[in-house]
Amino acid sequence: MQILKQPLDELLNQVAKRNRQQANRPDVEASVAGILADVRQDGDAALRKYEKQFDQVDLTDFKVPQSVIDDAYDNCDPKLLAALKLAQRNITAYHKKEITYGFVDAEQKGVVRGQKVLPLAAVGLYVPGGTAAYPSTILMSAIPAKLAGVKQIVMVTPPQPAGINPAVLAAAKLAGVSAIYQVGGAQAIGALAYGTQSIPKVDKIMGPGNIFVATAKKQVFGQVSIDMIAGPSEIGIIADETAKAQQVAADLLSQAEHDKLARPMLVTTSAAFAEAVSQAVDEQLVTLPRREIATASVNDQGFIAVVANTDDAFTLMNAVAPEHLEIQLANPMTYLNQIKNAGSVFLGTTASEPLGDYVAGPNHILPTSGTARFFSPLGVYDFVKRTQFIQYTPEALAKEAAPITTLARVEGLEGHARAIESRF
Amino acid sequence: MQILKQPLDELLNQVAKRNRQQANRPDVEASVAGILADVRQDGDAALRKYEKQFDQVDLTDFKVPQSVIDDAYDNCDPKLLAALKLAQRNITAYHKKEITYGFVDAEQKGVVRGQKVLPLAAVGLYVPGGTAAYPSTILMSAIPAKLAGVKQIVMVTPPQPAGINPAVLAAAKLAGVSAIYQVGGAQAIGALAYGTQSIPKVDKIMGPGNIFVATAKKQVFGQVSIDMIAGPSEIGIIADETAKAQQVAADLLSQAEHDKLARPMLVTTSAAFAEAVSQAVDEQLVTLPRREIATASVNDQGFIAVVANTDDAFTLMNAVAPEHLEIQLANPMTYLNQIKNAGSVFLGTTASEPLGDYVAGPNHILPTSGTARFFSPLGVYDFVKRTQFIQYTPEALAKEAAPITTLARVEGLEGHARAIESRF
Repeated sequence: MQILKQPLDELLNQVAKRNRQQANRPDVEASVAGILADVRQDGDAALRKYEKQFDQVDLTDFKVPQSVIDDAYDNCDPKLLAALKLAQRNITAYHKKEITYGFVDAEQKGVVRGQKVLPLAAVGLYVPGGTAAYPSTILMSAIPAKLAGVKQIVMVTPPQPAGINPAVLAAAKLAGVSAIYQVGGAQAIGALAYGTQSIPKVDKIMGPGNIFVATAKKQVFGQVSIDMIAGPSEIGIIADETAKAQQVAADLLSQAEHDKLARPMLVTTSAAFAEAVSQAVDEQLVTLPRREIATASVNDQGFIAVVANTDDAFTLMNAVAPEHLEIQLANPMTYLNQIKNAGSVFLGTTASEPLGDYVAGPNHILPTSGTARFFSPLGVYDFVKRTQFIQYTPEALAKEAAPITTLARVEGLEGHARAIESRF
Repeated sequence: MQILKQPLDELLNQVAKRNRQQANRPDVEASVAGILADVRQDGDAALRKYEKQFDQVDLTDFKVPQSVIDDAYDNCDPKLLAALKLAQRNITAYHKKEITYGFVDAEQKGVVRGQKVLPLAAVGLYVPGGTAAYPSTILMSAIPAKLAGVKQIVMVTPPQPAGINPAVLAAAKLAGVSAIYQVGGAQAIGALAYGTQSIPKVDKIMGPGNIFVATAKKQVFGQVSIDMIAGPSEIGIIADETAKAQQVAADLLSQAEHDKLARPMLVTTSAAFAEAVSQAVDEQLVTLPRREIATASVNDQGFIAVVANTDDAFTLMNAVAPEHLEIQLANPMTYLNQIKNAGSVFLGTTASEPLGDYVAGPNHILPTSGTARFFSPLGVYDFVKRTQFIQYTPEALAKEAAPITTLARVEGLEGHARAIESRF
């Protein structure tokens, strides 16, 4: 792996460049706009047309029959089912703590103010096709939705020549997905946003996808809500020589194997440790099944940076704002304060990143490409909305009537002032 | 006003049609994409070019000098300043209750899981120009940001021939806005998303604007976060004959005066009350200063629907999902359960909507056009992000190692399994 030893300022400049999002692609924008308009206009007929064109399938019914889902669940390998159930228990226990209930405030005489938290009625989960259809991801998105109280969880996924992966179907049943439709791409996003004859309109669309899916999500935003725009996976590791080079290398490769564009990054205070990890990465790559992908990621996207001290290491990692951040230092919890931008943090040498991918409980749907500056891990809070309420007695309104009419008239809104005055 | 007496199903169909968002405008999309690319490339020079072209001003410095802000504050009418301070106190008291602090979960032996809640570092507030630059809106957006712990609150607003409204500057100072820049339109959104020589890059952009601003916000989403896409104002009122027609009419007009596209809506169980309100609206319109706007809103966008009972009234209003909802029925708090989709709810005949616009404390930046189905009022939660963390002992990891490697191998991610196994 590339070992960088430049001064901190230069490293920060490099990171800033990496975190700049790609500009929008006008050709994709236009093509997606056309697909969305067609789906809005023609519903199922447009879905059929695009599934024929893009996925070479001619579907009469998009919905996966319940019997197929039940069979997948009933025939699921017991070891896999037990692992999914462990994950389900831990994900549920963790995300339960994200549930909020609003409040009532009765601090002033004659005034009640408050906030209700309500679940979204229906959400759509986009699940990519092929090998990127992960059963663990179904649990990570559907369980927080169920905990929020969402009644209708609709899953869409591109049709597959061999049918949808049975492990995905089993996970969907375990997590309480309401219905699964075989439709993908921008047309699937259109179906969820506008509704068709067979696919219900939802309130929010979650889940990663290719550039057509991501562009479609941005275009329907406002018609429905959407989650974040997902990019390639990332891992940032801060480690000193108390960590084990073999383990750090293995953790870097666990993200590198996802995608040629994945970004494995190590920041360390020890030049010798940097060398040791770089060598361990090279050695481990040789026998890794997905070595072609991982090698491209390591060589083209990855880096090891050697910095002067742990403060510099955190400064650099906060600028990266990595999706996953491992702190392989002694007493790792004491660094919590220094972490400003990261999706999910793994404290200490034992907390290997794949632990969080599967069973620990915190979410694995996380902000990428520097967006941990402002986006959060998927959680129960993504599946709720809030409604405010107030009630006033006439006496309480009388006390505030003059300031209201003053502000209304300063803003040129006489009708606002008169509405208050109509009470007196 | 138009009085509708169709069966509920027909009313619901009409509402569904109204809530469909406009399709995207390809011409605007392309023009905005060009402006954003220019700002990203040329920074301040591009801002100057577009401000010359769109606002006919030639600015050397975009930043409003602190002395101008201080003067506006010092010369503010004492009555106005007192009203702004009352609003500030109530907005602060209400939004304080939205603050959350994350959690630590230590329920399993050797396992710590938790979540940190952190403020966004920098946010941008877009404030529209002309008469739509409201001092109250500055308080409503900046106060929750401050409570969340945001350090840098940057305001942008189009340059005005007479300079920026002093009441807006005074409110910005009171609310703790960090800096104000005179730049508007899509170019201002680009400046906040990418940063320029004089305007800092932010993490999230909030605030309403015209179609260029809204389109620009959608296009930069992902590079930064954005709040909801705002549409014309709406008020929905559910009232029976225990309410006063004069007051209901005044409340409908308080929203109608905002915009020709604003939607004033009344649903009532009494045909006689419907007639009385319709007549009161006509009478009050005659002397309303903004009657031209309000008349267009009432005639073209407004309606009064007469329904069979209060259950039908709530069914219809939940389909509308209004920005503001007044419940002018006896014992209004007892209907809280029936409200599924609304931004802000005003319970009882005293709680006139403008009370919530100015001083009550809950936010007045609210979801419009049916988006209360999935968007929330602006709140402290809009200015924070979350970071997860886990720490495991080797013994705790050993207990979960087999399920992790099982799941990793089912998903074809051998590197994930090996990262765990490297610990043993």
